[in-house]
Amino acid sequence: MAEVEIGMGKAGRRTFDLADVSIIPSRRTRDASDVDLSWQIDAFTFELPLIASAMDAVVSPTTAIELGRLGAAAALHLEGVWTRWEQPEPLLEEIAHLPEEKVRTRLAEIYEEPVKPELVRDRISQLHDAGLVTCASVTPQGATALADVIRTAEIDLLVIQGTVVSAEHVSRSDDPLNLKRFVRELENPVIVGGCASYQAALHLMRTGAAGVLVGVGAGRASSARSVLGLGQGQATAIADARAARMRHLDETGVYVHVIADGGMTNSGDIAKAIVCGADSVMLGSPLAAASEAPGGGWNWGLAAGHATLPRGGRVKVGTVGTLEEILLGPAADHDGTTNLFGALRKAMALTGHASVKEMQKADLVVGGDA
Amino acid sequence: MAEVEIGMGKAGRRTFDLADVSIIPSRRTRDASDVDLSWQIDAFTFELPLIASAMDAVVSPTTAIELGRLGAAAALHLEGVWTRWEQPEPLLEEIAHLPEEKVRTRLAEIYEEPVKPELVRDRISQLHDAGLVTCASVTPQGATALADVIRTAEIDLLVIQGTVVSAEHVSRSDDPLNLKRFVRELENPVIVGGCASYQAALHLMRTGAAGVLVGVGAGRASSARSVLGLGQGQATAIADARAARMRHLDETGVYVHVIADGGMTNSGDIAKAIVCGADSVMLGSPLAAASEAPGGGWNWGLAAGHATLPRGGRVKVGTVGTLEEILLGPAADHDGTTNLFGALRKAMALTGHASVKEMQKADLVVGGDA
Amino acid sequence: MAEVEIGMGKAGRRTFDLADVSIIPSRRTRDASDVDLSWQIDAFTFELPLIASAMDAVVSPTTAIELGRLGAAAALHLEGVWTRWEQPEPLLEEIAHLPEEKVRTRLAEIYEEPVKPELVRDRISQLHDAGLVTCASVTPQGATALADVIRTAEIDLLVIQGTVVSAEHVSRSDDPLNLKRFVRELENPVIVGGCASYQAALHLMRTGAAGVLVGVGAGRASSARSVLGLGQGQATAIADARAARMRHLDETGVYVHVIADGGMTNSGDIAKAIVCGADSVMLGSPLAAASEAPGGGWNWGLAAGHATLPRGGRVKVGTVGTLEEILLGPAADHDGTTNLFGALRKAMALTGHASVKEMQKADLVVGGDA
Amino acid sequence: MAEVEIGMGKAGRRTFDLADVSIIPSRRTRDASDVDLSWQIDAFTFELPLIASAMDAVVSPTTAIELGRLGAAAALHLEGVWTRWEQPEPLLEEIAHLPEEKVRTRLAEIYEEPVKPELVRDRISQLHDAGLVTCASVTPQGATALADVIRTAEIDLLVIQGTVVSAEHVSRSDDPLNLKRFVRELENPVIVGGCASYQAALHLMRTGAAGVLVGVGAGRASSARSVLGLGQGQATAIADARAARMRHLDETGVYVHVIADGGMTNSGDIAKAIVCGADSVMLGSPLAAASEAPGGGWNWGLAAGHATLPRGGRVKVGTVGTLEEILLGPAADHDGTTNLFGALRKAMALTGHASVKEMQKADLVVGGDA
Repeated sequence: MAEVEIGMGKAGRRTFDLADVSIIPSRRTRDASDVDLSWQIDAFTFELPLIASAMDAVVSPTTAIELGRLGAAAALHLEGVWTRWEQPEPLLEEIAHLPEEKVRTRLAEIYEEPVKPELVRDRISQLHDAGLVTCASVTPQGATALADVIRTAEIDLLVIQGTVVSAEHVSRSDDPLNLKRFVRELENPVIVGGCASYQAALHLMRTGAAGVLVGVGAGRASSARSVLGLGQGQATAIADARAARMRHLDETGVYVHVIADGGMTNSGDIAKAIVCGADSVMLGSPLAAASEAPGGGWNWGLAAGHATLPRGGRVKVGTVGTLEEILLGPAADHDGTTNLFGALRKAMALTGHASVKEMQKADLVVGGDA
Repeated sequence: MAEVEIGMGKAGRRTFDLADVSIIPSRRTRDASDVDLSWQIDAFTFELPLIASAMDAVVSPTTAIELGRLGAAAALHLEGVWTRWEQPEPLLEEIAHLPEEKVRTRLAEIYEEPVKPELVRDRISQLHDAGLVTCASVTPQGATALADVIRTAEIDLLVIQGTVVSAEHVSRSDDPLNLKRFVRELENPVIVGGCASYQAALHLMRTGAAGVLVGVGAGRASSARSVLGLGQGQATAIADARAARMRHLDETGVYVHVIADGGMTNSGDIAKAIVCGADSVMLGSPLAAASEAPGGGWNWGLAAGHATLPRGGRVKVGTVGTLEEILLGPAADHDGTTNLFGALRKAMALTGHASVKEMQKADLVVGGDA
Repeated sequence: MAEVEIGMGKAGRRTFDLADVSIIPSRRTRDASDVDLSWQIDAFTFELPLIASAMDAVVSPTTAIELGRLGAAAALHLEGVWTRWEQPEPLLEEIAHLPEEKVRTRLAEIYEEPVKPELVRDRISQLHDAGLVTCASVTPQGATALADVIRTAEIDLLVIQGTVVSAEHVSRSDDPLNLKRFVRELENPVIVGGCASYQAALHLMRTGAAGVLVGVGAGRASSARSVLGLGQGQATAIADARAARMRHLDETGVYVHVIADGGMTNSGDIAKAIVCGADSVMLGSPLAAASEAPGGGWNWGLAAGHATLPRGGRVKVGTVGTLEEILLGPAADHDGTTNLFGALRKAMALTGHASVKEMQKADLVVGGDA
Repeated sequence: MAEVEIGMGKAGRRTFDLADVSIIPSRRTRDASDVDLSWQIDAFTFELPLIASAMDAVVSPTTAIELGRLGAAAALHLEGVWTRWEQPEPLLEEIAHLPEEKVRTRLAEIYEEPVKPELVRDRISQLHDAGLVTCASVTPQGATALADVIRTAEIDLLVIQGTVVSAEHVSRSDDPLNLKRFVRELENPVIVGGCASYQAALHLMRTGAAGVLVGVGAGRASSARSVLGLGQGQATAIADARAARMRHLDETGVYVHVIADGGMTNSGDIAKAIVCGADSVMLGSPLAAASEAPGGGWNWGLAAGHATLPRGGRVKVGTVGTLEEILLGPAADHDGTTNLFGALRKAMALTGHASVKEMQKADLVVGGDA
């Protein structure tokens, strides 16, 4: 561990973001057509190593189905507008056109509406009926509140997600989620996070999760760094989680997936995240820039609707192409915001790697314009 | 000590600012409602670990009372406008509206007016009568000049403060302040600073001070770095002062408070300052942005009024909310400039720490977008 | 090797770009008129250590002849507009005036036109007849497709070039270029690249190449970093290739030239590339800024015309002077964009070095405004 | 020596600029009125540790006299406009008003006019008659050409200065300056430079020079870094020269002054240069911003007039106050561009140092907002 002395008696690791590193080609190249991007988690296989982030500006029932068609998983947030409101479309439309000074209070109002278990069930059924691998997301609090419907709805993959989710939540007054018991009792695979360190990732893996989300305050629509002071270089966080994955595999024989969440703004970042050790990536803002995205050119997280400590706000992401163009091209640009997975395929070919798992072994360098 | 060679035979420590570091979550989280933010120094307890900075744009008798109501200490400068002028309100109003090119000379004129001991006494009485823990600030020169009134006024906490205050001031011609004697003879607790190194902090602690202010040229309204070449990474300075606190405690059994002064622009920085080792923070510009602040959207330090070597000038801070919104929310934004202590509470909860003292043990990392 | 830990179990070398380093004068200086800039590769001698990059915006038959007159080599791309179209001038003119949103699709159309072997032969003959050392460039795919015409045309120096070219290309379905066999069977010297590491450079040298191009994603008209995540500090890449050159020389007695390709925006960067170990430089955008350049103030690479994953696009380079002014002065400016080789001569004089080979021994420093 | 590996087999020292370092206060402070700023070199004493740079935009006979009155040395360039032209005032006026695109050619014309030895003698006499310590500057070539008049004019301090001046200049065709013989034969003290390393400084000291100028490409009106690739962190260069000074003193008993030249944009930088080891500073652009300065708000070096490889051009410096205000205050600002030496005095007081020599012992840190 590369510790630096911050002051006398207080040291910190030197950590790195994806922008701090670059992939260096090896002495072998490969045809792009020979590259396999598929991702398998538990019993499910996806053509792309991607989960669309459970943000209301990204995943609606409609975009979830389109993303499924394109080969990706898409997490519908069970505490977002689709489970609070019967007809959320006008609200999404309204949010996209709110003047900046009204965003905070209006978001707070919209997300004050209670979540309706019957809507949860309906939305999931809709996805299931479309033949999707259904994927849904809740906060730890939501997991407790919605435990019954979660257990009975047709959810294939459950994501339990917060700014920081730990295996051990201490509470004096509430009856908080016992993550380990919840995960073990659920029949379906669970993905949990975010986390940003070896210890935190390892303890989440030990809950029985099928995957952990890695990243704290790394996304464009997060302001955990300025508001909370929390953060971690995403390249370091992913590499640490990979180390936790190795230890957990050694101890238990179970391979827990490392899913990089946030901090990827272009296709180069996705390739780097995989080289750092990710099995898959979770993307929000890059997909919110799709013409089909519910956010209409904007993105925001659930925390932006917090009544007293909103984080992240509504951030402008623009529109760069269709979901298909963003994921599979053709690219409308040359800055790595469209044809994300065509670019990943090319990066793997130019470094001679045939699968995501192989790509994790590529070499990184630090610095050098990075 | 991480020394780097600047040139042959001249080395310097690598130091870090708050922006260079981030707090990394641990494997435990906690309910925000279980977090205790209170701060005790000597016989006094505050709900928040905060002293409002002794700047005329921040602390007036009126805002001191409001800050007290909100749970903070507020230092009134005994050499500022309130003790030089009977009716400073029109002057504050004037400063806020001066064209830039007139600021220097007009500030110099306003601060040329002599300090009036009877005004010092009156202002302090006003605070005392309002039921506040009274807190007042002087420069080392002011401490000498105003020694009599300081000893007799109803000051609960005295702050002796300058760009740099040392335990050993050398002078050929004057009769300078003997800090140690002054502190020891005064009955009430004294806070002294700024300082920015282990040795300097340790020697200030040995004067008998109850707290030391840590930070040299760190504030937004300071220009010590460009004008004087003086500076120190604030994260390093705080961590060093914490080490001095430990040694002093070991040698004497006395716990001297480390108060981070300057260099904090958002709530994330406050959380980081505490993790570096601060027991409390002194804030200027973040509070000058309150709608009640006397500066009317501007901030300046006493040094800006210096006749021949003004430092820092009048800096624009804008208005982001009421004092209550800035300290306790609800946040009007998502950039960490309002609900500063709600955000600190949340940061402590997400890292699993129940008190400020515990939060000092959180882990920091260097780099990674920070 | 200066490895840094990116995360637990994933390390990366700290690498440096040309902008990160500076040349430090020694205790000796020399007259500029005594400096020799000439470059010999295989049987060919050039007055300047320069190959103009095989980009359609830089090298046309006309500019190749002018560059030859000025003492430089110039690589004509055998898969560019000059071998796809009989009359490419109107197309170049059109590209220079396309609105930004039409660039991608129009470039893709223009580069869809098949390469015509007879045009390849004609263009090369034109250069040969002008008395030039003829230099032509192909991609690995192009080398296979154009193998016959390449073997029979009057090409003195062949460049085989791609974003990444490796000595070992793996392919399941195609009949890819066997680089080693191709190079060994060709009678004329071959330059291959890009590469960016010691191993990759060494293996390219072992194919029998006369020179290797060093640089991946380093040029202004490349976006390999953001799209593919690939990159390497150019100073590090060159120094590593120099180490490969030394090992290869030791093993075989053959000196393979290291040609820095990309990442040089001013004359200072050229001097630094040589000090890092380059025998010569390949320049694109700096020459595209010539008044005679075919790009008319713009530059683009072949990859910008890619149908589904365009990289680099069309970048504005402006016009700073004639080719003669850019290479030999007089300088029209003081920012290092004209009189590139007069500046190199001066840099060599001020550091006391009489030849390019000697200049490779100069000292570098890292940091310090660099 | 802190070497970092740039690439395999090519290492470079990590060097630092003045902006990379900060001065850290000690545990002692001192009254500003007790600080002594005077500087003695050879038989001459100046109230301020300052030589005004031999630039036509800074030092004219008139400003030299004013600078002398204020306590500084001022070097008149013997190859500038004052010795080429009888009446240079209209030319200076013209340069200040030239449109940008005409600067290069007009400067080249103006500096093509030959230097007139009788004008050299007259200008020096004028300074001498005003009672000044006369200080004049030549290039190494000028020293040879003007050797006779230099030996007989009333020059107290001679400066021999170029982008890089070495103790050993190699030339095949000319009869170059033998610096050592020249310096030893001259009766008056000589200051030589620029240099930027321990070895280069040491060898210049061994020529018998009374002082060495430290800095290569560090000034605002220089573009040695972008044009030539030459550079060195100024903090490192000064510290290295100080080490050379110590070794030379140990070997010979002679104290050679280290004069920091360039890279200082505010008063904080001057204080830092002294802490790095400088005995004095040479300032150009900061003084060109005086209302009396001949440059009329612009600055340029002799190299800007070079016919084929101009470096540095004419740079805008504006006007910030009178020479007296710039050197001694009162400051018109709070950014360290006026009252440079009042600020130095204050910095020395706040760090407890009574003389420039003592100030060289202050502590530096690296980083921390620097």
